[in-house]
Amino acid sequence: MIAAGWLRRIFYVIEDHKSAFLTALLLGLLSNAFISLANPLALKYLFDEGIIRKNFGLFTALSVAFVAIFTLWRLGVLSYRLFVQRVKNKILVSWSLKMLRRYYNIPYSEIITRDNGYFLSRVYDEISTTVLPVVDCALGLFNSIISFTVALGVVLFLSWRATLVLICVIPIVYRLSRRFGAKIKKESKLEKEEEAKLRGILGRALGSYKVTKTFNLYDGIYAKTSAQAGRFIDVLYARFKTSTIYQSLGGMFMSYAETAVMIAAGYEILAGRMTFGGFMGFMNAFWLVIGASKDMFERIPEMSRIVGAIERLVELQELEARQTNFSYGDEVKLEDVSFAYNDHKVLRNFNLKTKRGEKVLIVGPNGSGKSTLAHLMAGFLC
Amino acid sequence: MIAAGWLRRIFYVIEDHKSAFLTALLLGLLSNAFISLANPLALKYLFDEGIIRKNFGLFTALSVAFVAIFTLWRLGVLSYRLFVQRVKNKILVSWSLKMLRRYYNIPYSEIITRDNGYFLSRVYDEISTTVLPVVDCALGLFNSIISFTVALGVVLFLSWRATLVLICVIPIVYRLSRRFGAKIKKESKLEKEEEAKLRGILGRALGSYKVTKTFNLYDGIYAKTSAQAGRFIDVLYARFKTSTIYQSLGGMFMSYAETAVMIAAGYEILAGRMTFGGFMGFMNAFWLVIGASKDMFERIPEMSRIVGAIERLVELQELEARQTNFSYGDEVKLEDVSFAYNDHKVLRNFNLKTKRGEKVLIVGPNGSGKSTLAHLMAGFLC
Repeated sequence: MIAAGWLRRIFYVIEDHKSAFLTALLLGLLSNAFISLANPLALKYLFDEGIIRKNFGLFTALSVAFVAIFTLWRLGVLSYRLFVQRVKNKILVSWSLKMLRRYYNIPYSEIITRDNGYFLSRVYDEISTTVLPVVDCALGLFNSIISFTVALGVVLFLSWRATLVLICVIPIVYRLSRRFGAKIKKESKLEKEEEAKLRGILGRALGSYKVTKTFNLYDGIYAKTSAQAGRFIDVLYARFKTSTIYQSLGGMFMSYAETAVMIAAGYEILAGRMTFGGFMGFMNAFWLVIGASKDMFERIPEMSRIVGAIERLVELQELEARQTNFSYGDEVKLEDVSFAYNDHKVLRNFNLKTKRGEKVLIVGPNGSGKSTLAHLMAGFLC
Repeated sequence: MIAAGWLRRIFYVIEDHKSAFLTALLLGLLSNAFISLANPLALKYLFDEGIIRKNFGLFTALSVAFVAIFTLWRLGVLSYRLFVQRVKNKILVSWSLKMLRRYYNIPYSEIITRDNGYFLSRVYDEISTTVLPVVDCALGLFNSIISFTVALGVVLFLSWRATLVLICVIPIVYRLSRRFGAKIKKESKLEKEEEAKLRGILGRALGSYKVTKTFNLYDGIYAKTSAQAGRFIDVLYARFKTSTIYQSLGGMFMSYAETAVMIAAGYEILAGRMTFGGFMGFMNAFWLVIGASKDMFERIPEMSRIVGAIERLVELQELEARQTNFSYGDEVKLEDVSFAYNDHKVLRNFNLKTKRGEKVLIVGPNGSGKSTLAHLMAGFLC
């Protein structure tokens, strides 16, 4: 259900670049599947065949061969990343122009209620914060799902018993990242608010240079600034504490998990069910599984956030086209025209008729409706 | 030489918090020395005593003991990080107030040449971008030096032959990070410039809503926007390419280095000069050495940059105190006063004498010097 909504929004964003996006997706999946499979298995064979059989020549040859293969893989990843960037660049340009086009569909009565900065942010900044991240997030999510699946297959293949221990770990990773993620987000918001207040107080202190010096108001200003700075660093510290505790807990939990899995795998070695190379490969794939699951759990809330933000783009895109081309006739005629901004009536039953080349002088005090009349005649207000 | 200048600047910044800073430094050094020593050696003994001797009970007991010790260490690191944050918070507050005090020492003739935003950035933002980073950077630099030294001692202890291979790697890490670092910085600057131009063009396009619609100028505007968007994504792509190639090269180089060290260590195992546990410990310490040296190489240019920025703070701090407290006498007397803004003479041999309670009306056209006269009498211009 949710996934279908997400896919619809992703395709909405990549519109004209579907095939490039799908190519990037496919390449990413292949690359991640390959490395999640090849890296642990290469370690296993390197140690089993080389070191344990005491064959230094074979060990060296295998090492060099693996390095050569992984070099090719890295070159592949390099061109993959450059390709994705080119796709993102194209999407950036085509969306900037698309948004600019839609801007001219916004009724003039809305344009005048906001300043330029607002529309620049809607037309340009929202692309950098929604359109581009949705591409990264979607590709990243698919890539971590494939890495997770393949690496889980590898640990199962190497030892299903030790894998049982690993599987108990994943839900706890999920719980930790969900719980602390929400708390940190809330505290970050509070921190930004308090910092904004501090900047506000400082700004006013700087603006009152003359008054402060003339009337010797230093003490009051320092006390006010100091009090707000204190409030700001209190919330900053609270946010820092939460995220530091989260990192510490996460790190501790990971070392417990690693130890539990290592003990299970060590038992398998001693029971003769796992080779030493198998152990090296197992630990490698273990970290791939953990990394991929953390990545998945972090991308899911990010994806909901971005998809929510895309709704704002859709809103602007779906504005009915008003990009009327002007053509001038021989006469302008207004008959019984009335106009009001909300409750404020500006024109009442106004009549005017003027021919091409005729000159009309319209006079009146401020606010009597001269500009409104001109805007109406030009078609900006309707 | 350079280090002495840096130390002087660090102490300048932490002024009233020297003992807290030195405590943080000492705790950090102890913690890093401990983990760089304990982590590889614990791995060595775990494998040598547990797995190789096929003693599962001992292997489990050692695992659990090490996890317990590392848990204590992590709790210590947690309180260390919270402590450092409290020190940084105190420094932030005391510097904000100190800068605000100095702001009132700036001559009024300088205040009027800039806007509020400029001084807010000098009084507040420069603290967040210089004072706080210098604390982190100094602590981080000392910590990576100690980690590097201790971990290098460990690899030497485990196998001096394999360490020789490792030592050849470090200068190459240094060269790579220097060379690409400079290039990326330059390209990032170019990217920001082109993006600013794009925002400028978009801003003007948004500002000309009425003209564009009335005169049907859409095509010209789209063409201009599209051309600048193209230039912007070209430099963005160039910068992305450089940093991606740097990461790829770095990753490739690291995997070659790891392989070379692994082959050397594998040879030592087969020659009977290294145990398997020793190999595990060696590879762990190898990554500590590489991580710490990368960290050192990245922090050194960062430190120069920050110390350079601190000079700007010093400049403002050393402004002679002009925070004169006003006291009013019974008379204001000006005798032959002349004043000029650069070449523009405003007052010439002006005389005025007024008693307490007396009312004086000063008249004159715009620019004749009325405000200048008031500012002079209040002592803002001198």
